Amino acid sequence: MNKPFTLRALAQHLDAELVGDPDYLIHEIATLQNAAEQSISFVASPAYEKYLADSRAGALILKSELANSFSGNKLIVANPYLAYAHLTRLFDDSLDFYPPGIHPTAIIDERARLGKDVHIGCYAVIAAGVTLGDGVIIGPGSVIGEDTMVGARTRLGPRVTLYHGIVIGSDCIIHSGAVIGADGFGFAPDQKAWVKIHQLGSVIVGDRVEIGANTTIDRGALENTLIGDGVKIDNLVHIGHNVSLGKNTAMAALTGIAGSTIVGDNCTFAGQVGISGHLTITDDVHVTGKSLVNSSLTEAGSYSSCTPIAPTREWRKNAVRFRQLDSMVARIKQLEKAAKEN
Amino acid sequence: MNKPFTLRALAQHLDAELVGDPDYLIHEIATLQNAAEQSISFVASPAYEKYLADSRAGALILKSELANSFSGNKLIVANPYLAYAHLTRLFDDSLDFYPPGIHPTAIIDERARLGKDVHIGCYAVIAAGVTLGDGVIIGPGSVIGEDTMVGARTRLGPRVTLYHGIVIGSDCIIHSGAVIGADGFGFAPDQKAWVKIHQLGSVIVGDRVEIGANTTIDRGALENTLIGDGVKIDNLVHIGHNVSLGKNTAMAALTGIAGSTIVGDNCTFAGQVGISGHLTITDDVHVTGKSLVNSSLTEAGSYSSCTPIAPTREWRKNAVRFRQLDSMVARIKQLEKAAKEN
Amino acid sequence: MNKPFTLRALAQHLDAELVGDPDYLIHEIATLQNAAEQSISFVASPAYEKYLADSRAGALILKSELANSFSGNKLIVANPYLAYAHLTRLFDDSLDFYPPGIHPTAIIDERARLGKDVHIGCYAVIAAGVTLGDGVIIGPGSVIGEDTMVGARTRLGPRVTLYHGIVIGSDCIIHSGAVIGADGFGFAPDQKAWVKIHQLGSVIVGDRVEIGANTTIDRGALENTLIGDGVKIDNLVHIGHNVSLGKNTAMAALTGIAGSTIVGDNCTFAGQVGISGHLTITDDVHVTGKSLVNSSLTEAGSYSSCTPIAPTREWRKNAVRFRQLDSMVARIKQLEKAAKEN
Repeated sequence: MNKPFTLRALAQHLDAELVGDPDYLIHEIATLQNAAEQSISFVASPAYEKYLADSRAGALILKSELANSFSGNKLIVANPYLAYAHLTRLFDDSLDFYPPGIHPTAIIDERARLGKDVHIGCYAVIAAGVTLGDGVIIGPGSVIGEDTMVGARTRLGPRVTLYHGIVIGSDCIIHSGAVIGADGFGFAPDQKAWVKIHQLGSVIVGDRVEIGANTTIDRGALENTLIGDGVKIDNLVHIGHNVSLGKNTAMAALTGIAGSTIVGDNCTFAGQVGISGHLTITDDVHVTGKSLVNSSLTEAGSYSSCTPIAPTREWRKNAVRFRQLDSMVARIKQLEKAAKEN
Repeated sequence: MNKPFTLRALAQHLDAELVGDPDYLIHEIATLQNAAEQSISFVASPAYEKYLADSRAGALILKSELANSFSGNKLIVANPYLAYAHLTRLFDDSLDFYPPGIHPTAIIDERARLGKDVHIGCYAVIAAGVTLGDGVIIGPGSVIGEDTMVGARTRLGPRVTLYHGIVIGSDCIIHSGAVIGADGFGFAPDQKAWVKIHQLGSVIVGDRVEIGANTTIDRGALENTLIGDGVKIDNLVHIGHNVSLGKNTAMAALTGIAGSTIVGDNCTFAGQVGISGHLTITDDVHVTGKSLVNSSLTEAGSYSSCTPIAPTREWRKNAVRFRQLDSMVARIKQLEKAAKEN
Repeated sequence: MNKPFTLRALAQHLDAELVGDPDYLIHEIATLQNAAEQSISFVASPAYEKYLADSRAGALILKSELANSFSGNKLIVANPYLAYAHLTRLFDDSLDFYPPGIHPTAIIDERARLGKDVHIGCYAVIAAGVTLGDGVIIGPGSVIGEDTMVGARTRLGPRVTLYHGIVIGSDCIIHSGAVIGADGFGFAPDQKAWVKIHQLGSVIVGDRVEIGANTTIDRGALENTLIGDGVKIDNLVHIGHNVSLGKNTAMAALTGIAGSTIVGDNCTFAGQVGISGHLTITDDVHVTGKSLVNSSLTEAGSYSSCTPIAPTREWRKNAVRFRQLDSMVARIKQLEKAAKEN
């Protein structure tokens, strides 16, 4: 984080109103708490107003309502948190690590088509029929299977696998270890054994999708697994075959969706949520952490399951009672009947 | 999916009764809903009978009971879903991607023994003492440790790790990113610190086992972790050290089994099931999604835990009550006692 | 396991009292049940005393209290389980697989600094500015990003990713497929879409940390994700951005921690535990398998959530009642009121 920007440049980048010294140099973004002279920070909530007078930040991003609470340099915007997000891109030096160029150890089938200015890292393997759009970045050790297409400016980290016949949109980010297009989990029972259902569908990923480290998205059985535009998927998530995720849906780590479930747009799933197969989940559904979604959800809103954390000794007593719930209701009914008769 | 088959060939492959034109060309398998002239589809359940009259499928696989409901070409079999599974193999073009041959960049220790017709992909690494059976396929970037044995016709996807001393049976499929034989999680406490228990056992995987993408199976502490013949394991599953899985047991994504648990034959575990360590689970146990198996299961049957999904506002009220369950029972007892005394 | 040791050597290694033949040769460690003439075994609990008379073990590690129950060779120590742990290191032949040396196919940027006696495997990729301490082992296919530092004697398995700017301490073990330093999951909402918050922090891992296969530890947003000395993390664990784990905390497979949660020292988390973001968990907290920690824990002790496993038919009846818990309490109150009035 040593490439400084003038406040003028930052204000321009954010389309912000600058109050203060336009030539002031900012070297880093910092939290409000840790911001020093060379830092810019942001005030996302009025709750932090009390800290502003004492802040040592070289500059602050804030709403006009709070502008008078800070006497230093400031960038005034409507949405400081969003402005912070836009600013992080400027300070991300790692974007410079992948200039256009193909490492001599990359193995690229002569039948692959490469766009302009692609970066292909060491020991990457690109199979026949692959198409890479302009500005694509393929990290070291990544493997791209036959006939797979990757849209412009999409970035694969190190050691990503895209199996054959996959389509990835533009401006996606796929982190290290992700596996897209392995076989869906499909078997037909034959006596007690299982006969593999070869998975003949594909995975179609939209634009601006982010896929986390070691996440797996399986290919469809006959039709395709579909990931909508703007979807954000965290690490170690499992997406089963023939799942469809709507636009801008976000899914936190260790969440899993079983086969053929259709999820709407703008949903959020916290960590470790489990979603059964063959369900339909409408738009704008939000599911809290570790919930089991085992029925379709037809109304927007927030959903939960699970039980709350408790000291183990207390939990044990109550957990035993869970298995008596139905009989408890019967006993209450009995009491109610008796009370009525009295 | 452009390699067409005659219906005659498909009928032979399935040992099915063909009613219709034996020279009719089938280009793909499709769902009943999407099947067109060049497609074959299947009718797995009598519930779909109503769709048959309108189906545009070039041919259908169905039971003899439904044969009269469809006037087009048909293949009559006892179990259409099983026939569909067998058919998918024919249409899986990806099986042709790995002809026998060793890529010049594969690093193969001279003390490794390779069977006939193996395929070893780019940048694969095969250590000393490894034995690969006939027809084995090793995907690009896979790493096989010292003295590991891989049985005939077993296929490893891209970027699979088999640590040292592992035994994999014949006709297995291991998907990209799977790690077999990393250290089990074993430590002895010494004051507040942990002393590593080096894991000296191995992993023995039977025949016809499928292991999903990014799944991990740890090596045993002193003895071996055992995966029985015909076991099917989905993505992102964790199998702890010294676990034993019986024949044909199937385990869906994100399920985890802690150390030393013994699971019987023909069990099924849905996604995100957690199984504690040192348990014994008998044959033919089926566990629904997200359940916690924290005691041994000695009777075959279906088991569940967890709580049902509900709107968060409603859930919150009930979840609080979970911690009062034991006191609720006490209150009911009190009321029953009072009622009796009246 | 064919490198034998004399009992004298083992006694010295463990600082144990040797009773028996100091020249007796031990070829392997075995469980008490399977121990044969060439084996040494250990007795961790007095519960096993009954098996000692019949044991065929060539030698046993036991406490002095049990010494008279076994007539063969014995090593007497205060803590046999801990002694067993220390002994496993001697019998771990895999430690010899990585002699100092750099494979000619490893790609090492000229601006990387390597300590003495490092082992760098085939097809490893070491970027500019990387520092590797003395005796570091980098497995085949591992990728180390710009400016990352790895402390002395730390061992990376095959196919590990360390992103740029990461710091790993000394004497750590990182298993195959682990990904350290991928982007934290951070986005600012802009209308219905998500704007990426580039993750500018890093991951700082202490000394003697073990990180399991396919585990992911994300880099911080502005500040760093912190993993304390002596932490042990199992497979397929997710550690979110800006999490801090205290010293010697251990975390079993498939556990996930959301962003910015601070965990104390000496905690243990069993498998599949989920920990929400922005919590504080004090020292010496122990959480049982599959629990959801959705509030801060300020007192040491054992905690649980979840419901117990039950036959599905029984579970279904009780699970329905969970959604009636609040109304059940109202009904009990009503009955209590009526009883009082009588």
